[in-house]
Amino acid sequence: MVMGSLPERVDLAVVGGGVGGYVAAIRGAELGMSVAIVEKEKMGGHCLNYACIPSKTLIHISDILEEIKGSAKFGISVEGARIDPKIMYNWRMGVSEKLEKGVEFLCKAHKIEVIKGNASFASSTQIQVSNGVSFDFKNAVIATGSEPAKLGGFDFDGKTVIDYKKALMLDYIPHTMAIIGAGYVAVELGMLYAKMGTKVDIVARSDILSRFDQDAVALVKKRMEALGIKIHRGVLPTALEGNTVKLSDNSEIESELIVVAVGLSPFTYGLGLENTKVKLDEKGFVKVGADLRTDDTNILAIGDVIGEPMLAHKAIRQGVVAAEIASGQATRYENKVVPAVVFSTPEIAIAGSVAQTKDVKVTKFPLSALGRAIALDTEDGFVKIAYDEEGVVKGVEIVSQDANAMISEAALAIEMGATIEDIADTIHPHPTYSEAVQEAAEAAFGKPVHFFYG
Amino acid sequence: MVMGSLPERVDLAVVGGGVGGYVAAIRGAELGMSVAIVEKEKMGGHCLNYACIPSKTLIHISDILEEIKGSAKFGISVEGARIDPKIMYNWRMGVSEKLEKGVEFLCKAHKIEVIKGNASFASSTQIQVSNGVSFDFKNAVIATGSEPAKLGGFDFDGKTVIDYKKALMLDYIPHTMAIIGAGYVAVELGMLYAKMGTKVDIVARSDILSRFDQDAVALVKKRMEALGIKIHRGVLPTALEGNTVKLSDNSEIESELIVVAVGLSPFTYGLGLENTKVKLDEKGFVKVGADLRTDDTNILAIGDVIGEPMLAHKAIRQGVVAAEIASGQATRYENKVVPAVVFSTPEIAIAGSVAQTKDVKVTKFPLSALGRAIALDTEDGFVKIAYDEEGVVKGVEIVSQDANAMISEAALAIEMGATIEDIADTIHPHPTYSEAVQEAAEAAFGKPVHFFYG
Repeated sequence: MVMGSLPERVDLAVVGGGVGGYVAAIRGAELGMSVAIVEKEKMGGHCLNYACIPSKTLIHISDILEEIKGSAKFGISVEGARIDPKIMYNWRMGVSEKLEKGVEFLCKAHKIEVIKGNASFASSTQIQVSNGVSFDFKNAVIATGSEPAKLGGFDFDGKTVIDYKKALMLDYIPHTMAIIGAGYVAVELGMLYAKMGTKVDIVARSDILSRFDQDAVALVKKRMEALGIKIHRGVLPTALEGNTVKLSDNSEIESELIVVAVGLSPFTYGLGLENTKVKLDEKGFVKVGADLRTDDTNILAIGDVIGEPMLAHKAIRQGVVAAEIASGQATRYENKVVPAVVFSTPEIAIAGSVAQTKDVKVTKFPLSALGRAIALDTEDGFVKIAYDEEGVVKGVEIVSQDANAMISEAALAIEMGATIEDIADTIHPHPTYSEAVQEAAEAAFGKPVHFFYG
Repeated sequence: MVMGSLPERVDLAVVGGGVGGYVAAIRGAELGMSVAIVEKEKMGGHCLNYACIPSKTLIHISDILEEIKGSAKFGISVEGARIDPKIMYNWRMGVSEKLEKGVEFLCKAHKIEVIKGNASFASSTQIQVSNGVSFDFKNAVIATGSEPAKLGGFDFDGKTVIDYKKALMLDYIPHTMAIIGAGYVAVELGMLYAKMGTKVDIVARSDILSRFDQDAVALVKKRMEALGIKIHRGVLPTALEGNTVKLSDNSEIESELIVVAVGLSPFTYGLGLENTKVKLDEKGFVKVGADLRTDDTNILAIGDVIGEPMLAHKAIRQGVVAAEIASGQATRYENKVVPAVVFSTPEIAIAGSVAQTKDVKVTKFPLSALGRAIALDTEDGFVKIAYDEEGVVKGVEIVSQDANAMISEAALAIEMGATIEDIADTIHPHPTYSEAVQEAAEAAFGKPVHFFYG
């Protein structure tokens, strides 16, 4: 028990202080419930301390370096840009610390009991914490998130073989980095370090971003190759000898650092779920319904621990919904889309699917026809919109600088059941990348303005 | 007559090849009409050649310089960044040239007759061009735009006293620049040159951006002052002596360049409107209805020449609508909002109004509580949303980096009659600036997650 005095029974117990958990706790307190949250390490969890925030901080810094290098065409010259990795490290750590303190402040302001330790369910109504505290709850939310998946033969040693968390906490720029895995984490890490001068190898079972739209991936690949990143396609890592990764095609990579980024595993270990009626599915995720309730009705679960997509903003939304449900509201988690962003260059942002099917058409507008992209030399990109026979928007993909900021329009459009005409008829300001969304919609009617489809 | 062979009578004649005019021409051609467009100078008009595109190009370049200077905190050091204004000028001119050629290509692809010369209406059905060509039309669209307003006693001489067009075509960085006027053009120009090292004075009749939300303006002012820009408030320029501007408070500014940016005047001179039934209003704008028709039914008008807001994207949208109306469709120009962006630092983007009234409440979320803004040291900003008693969104203001790309979500929300709950319940990706839009919406219910209002 860390602050205040914990009542014997709280209205809402939250297990895990990451973005899902602390949001559930805050919304719970806002709704008038007494709330306790148990966190084993740092408030803010992976997102604030080891994942989203640190990676986007470092990506931003690497992008500035990259932009400096590419600015000779604009007339900007520098004698040579250098990065001091210690200062960078301090900034990155300082950001996490500031955000962690921010979350602690919000919890305090909302009179949320924050307990540091490992939580374990003693029963369907009681939690025991490793610091000796135990308390009853009316409702609980499991928000324990995930941890980097392990790969046999490549055990994390924190020095040579590291996970993405450690890779985002280096106070030096490695000369070489081999990344095992080829999903968005691998691509973001690889591009970020390549921009800082690291020689990067990526080991891909099939290819990078294999589950993404290949039109988008092609543009990212082109840029990765320009950055000198070597993608080893269709191979598996077979063994590790010292700093050398042996591959299934009999080649090998010697590297200062080996980052294993083969996905995320739900964190359920040691939670005492065997003392409750909570069930896991075959992949190890906690099973819940649209009301986010587990098989143990008063225990809800949210975020990474309940399955894909394992994204912070899904956890945030589910945190809000879980708190409302626990307070007795009839809310359900029924969002149509969870947008996703790969912070590559160019960025890929998607909401829904842009796969063409029998009933779904896809319209596309290339950035090479967009004024702003031409002006800023960022023509590698496009917008695709998928829509059904009634014109209802089913999916949007934006491949562009600032895509991360633009995809929310698409998410809102899909949630509201917008048609392609709604988007086409909405004035998008000029000159912005977001005009490409409007132009793609206009192209669906065979009436694009700035592109001639012949 | 420049290309092809002009028929004696075209379905659609467009006067002015700027963003409004060429869009009307292209959409007209897509709808099957024979189209001729008369342009006195360059296709793409002010927007492509002298305004939107060049200014955003130069602003981007100045922002890179500024970012380099501010990157020491991230660990980035350079020996000294310099700008070669000749290279910058060539890039900026090259962009306009490329876009102009793009428009010419699109016109050619759509078999639009492009006639270079000054157009004058000979009657309600005939246009005469200064190159000797004359032709009849079934419908015409006046899209002549605007020109920089003149200021008595400060005549443009193209050397010392210049307009914004000329200010965006310098192949050197002036040591000093006095800007007369304090609207968004003055602010954008002033910040852009200050970032490049020019000592800038701004002469404001009242204050900068006096018609904008003052909470937003305060943040821009703070940055302008940090850039060393001197704002002379509440004064009028009374006389010019050589390079010295005399002010109504008896102070004076000596400056290498004097930019007069006191607004835009509709361009109607020499159009032969006296030979038609077209009427102007008291401010000199062409009068039209929601069907964009002038008092001479078959002559429509769009863009700057019909009034405020004098923004490219309004002209583009009206160009589309005018072509559809001319082709016999029942379309009307009835957009609820024309978003506007000031490309200052931070950017101000607005859709609708965020003024509080008896029936309209305003919710606000500060960027200082947003993860991405903290991570990237861009905390100066906020999102405001105005909504009525039913929760329907009436206006959104975004003051932030990337605001230009984010305001389209707001425009779509307003066009679709979205409520504040629609925005709050839509998942916005993390970590992005666009989360601030969602958080502002959530704050309206007294349930913000990342800010404690106490």
